Amino acid sequence: MPGLENSAPEQLGFVGGRLDRADHIRVKPELVAQAFASPDARCLVLDGLDPVTLDGHLLMEPIGPEAQVGDHLLLGLEAGKRPIFVRLAAEVGSNFVPSPRSRSIVAEVPADEVALYGAARSLVHWHGRHPYCSVCGAGTRPEKAGWARRCGTCDAEHFPRVDPVVIMLAEHRGRVLVGRQHSWPQGFYSALAGFIEPGETIEEAVAREIKEEAGVSVHSIRYVTSQPWPFPSSLMIACIAQADDDALALDETEIEHAFWCNVDGVRAALAKDINAPFICPQPMAVAWHLLKYWVDAQVAPSEPSA
Amino acid sequence: MPGLENSAPEQLGFVGGRLDRADHIRVKPELVAQAFASPDARCLVLDGLDPVTLDGHLLMEPIGPEAQVGDHLLLGLEAGKRPIFVRLAAEVGSNFVPSPRSRSIVAEVPADEVALYGAARSLVHWHGRHPYCSVCGAGTRPEKAGWARRCGTCDAEHFPRVDPVVIMLAEHRGRVLVGRQHSWPQGFYSALAGFIEPGETIEEAVAREIKEEAGVSVHSIRYVTSQPWPFPSSLMIACIAQADDDALALDETEIEHAFWCNVDGVRAALAKDINAPFICPQPMAVAWHLLKYWVDAQVAPSEPSA
Ligand SMILES: [Zn+2]
Ligand SMILES: [Zn+2]
Repeated sequence: MPGLENSAPEQLGFVGGRLDRADHIRVKPELVAQAFASPDARCLVLDGLDPVTLDGHLLMEPIGPEAQVGDHLLLGLEAGKRPIFVRLAAEVGSNFVPSPRSRSIVAEVPADEVALYGAARSLVHWHGRHPYCSVCGAGTRPEKAGWARRCGTCDAEHFPRVDPVVIMLAEHRGRVLVGRQHSWPQGFYSALAGFIEPGETIEEAVAREIKEEAGVSVHSIRYVTSQPWPFPSSLMIACIAQADDDALALDETEIEHAFWCNVDGVRAALAKDINAPFICPQPMAVAWHLLKYWVDAQVAPSEPSA
Repeated sequence: MPGLENSAPEQLGFVGGRLDRADHIRVKPELVAQAFASPDARCLVLDGLDPVTLDGHLLMEPIGPEAQVGDHLLLGLEAGKRPIFVRLAAEVGSNFVPSPRSRSIVAEVPADEVALYGAARSLVHWHGRHPYCSVCGAGTRPEKAGWARRCGTCDAEHFPRVDPVVIMLAEHRGRVLVGRQHSWPQGFYSALAGFIEPGETIEEAVAREIKEEAGVSVHSIRYVTSQPWPFPSSLMIACIAQADDDALALDETEIEHAFWCNVDGVRAALAKDINAPFICPQPMAVAWHLLKYWVDAQVAPSEPSA
């Protein structure tokens, strides 16, 4: 059954884009027009915000004769210099939850195309939510090949958002803290997470979120890795922190339940063991890799010494 | 002369905020109103977006009898639980350059108050640029104690921005790459930097920016530290990367000049040595700390061995 097999089953989703983002072209309308008019140019096809695939690849179509360059965003250039555009046309809602179709893409196309889809989804969503100027309320139009919008009235320039999010494991004496939200499927737990706020470092946001959600104070916060998450445009920043102690005081509006899980339990969850103490996110999500990173860093359980 | 002496001259600016951001209060209008009505409540005074100080501290005033809670943002609670608000009233432009007054604050008040000012400046600026809904063009109003705005017409919710930026040193055989923009004061160089775009990891953005600006390919990218930079609301993410080689191909629209500097040169710049090969940013900026981190990681030059 298509979509259930994945050639790289532990691949983090939406990373590894290979397009040259062609910053030098974006700012020159004549170069953008030239790229758009090139017979090599292709338009990434979306169904609303969902991906469309054909034969294991994202569907790309030649640019039609009626297409207007001003309605398109230049995603970048393929290695062979083929320009790849996407049409800025989707009616988009505020829904932040990925559709099943946009999740299953990770199993269907190569990793760099998953990343390309993710970038396109974030950008098309942002344009769909920004036809008007937040400064004066007048209309805005795309410019810089879709990498900005400008207000026709007050001249304000607006740029696509990237919202940094911290996602983290608190560690205490060989166990890590996993929690679940009320809306999640039964048995499903993950690392705690939350948006970085204005005026915070990454490390301050990690400490604040763990304190707010679980009542746990942490120190020695270490960065592990990052991932773009295109629902709609987060930058996931994954960290591990050392907890001062293991007493929990959950924010029950945010977190339904949380517990400290030992390495055997996390290893079982990663392996989808039926007896695992929780169900963890898929490898497309950085939470899986954060748990894996922690498990791999643990020494093997020592033999009883007495 | 006030402002030239700094009690912690190597203090990174805008980090180390100590307010409890009081997430649990923000979402309950009755708790926000109660905090606002408290005789302990204080309002952080700004002059436009600039700080106002008195006796070495940010100026805070009691809440006046005519003040409306809906015009204020709850920055958080001091340790003694005193609520600190700021008025959302500034006329703000699009100017991203810090004023001299907003830079000199780092030398005048304790570090946690610098951080509080930075958070307030980012938030007040964002509100000033978002009176209208980007989705439908109608008016928006603050909600969640100023941590969001909602459209009265289409009901869209809008959140303050945090724009992640990578700032990084490429390293090659004991030297690091520093560059300067055309608009900078003579002799001034810093680490390269640029906004993270939708669909990128931190590491991908580092590699793209160094390639775009200097023509250098890098690998082995390591995260070092982070800093909020409130002009208007960046999150600086500082990294070090290993360059594949030292050949430069500068993007001359972005970078006027760049060069590889050895450890003695960087050390001299950090020490403000008159003979240093460049003038580096002040310690309030994360670039200074990135350079310092690199210098400290270098072993002392080895003695001639033959
Ligand atoms: Zn406008
Ligand atoms: Zn609206």
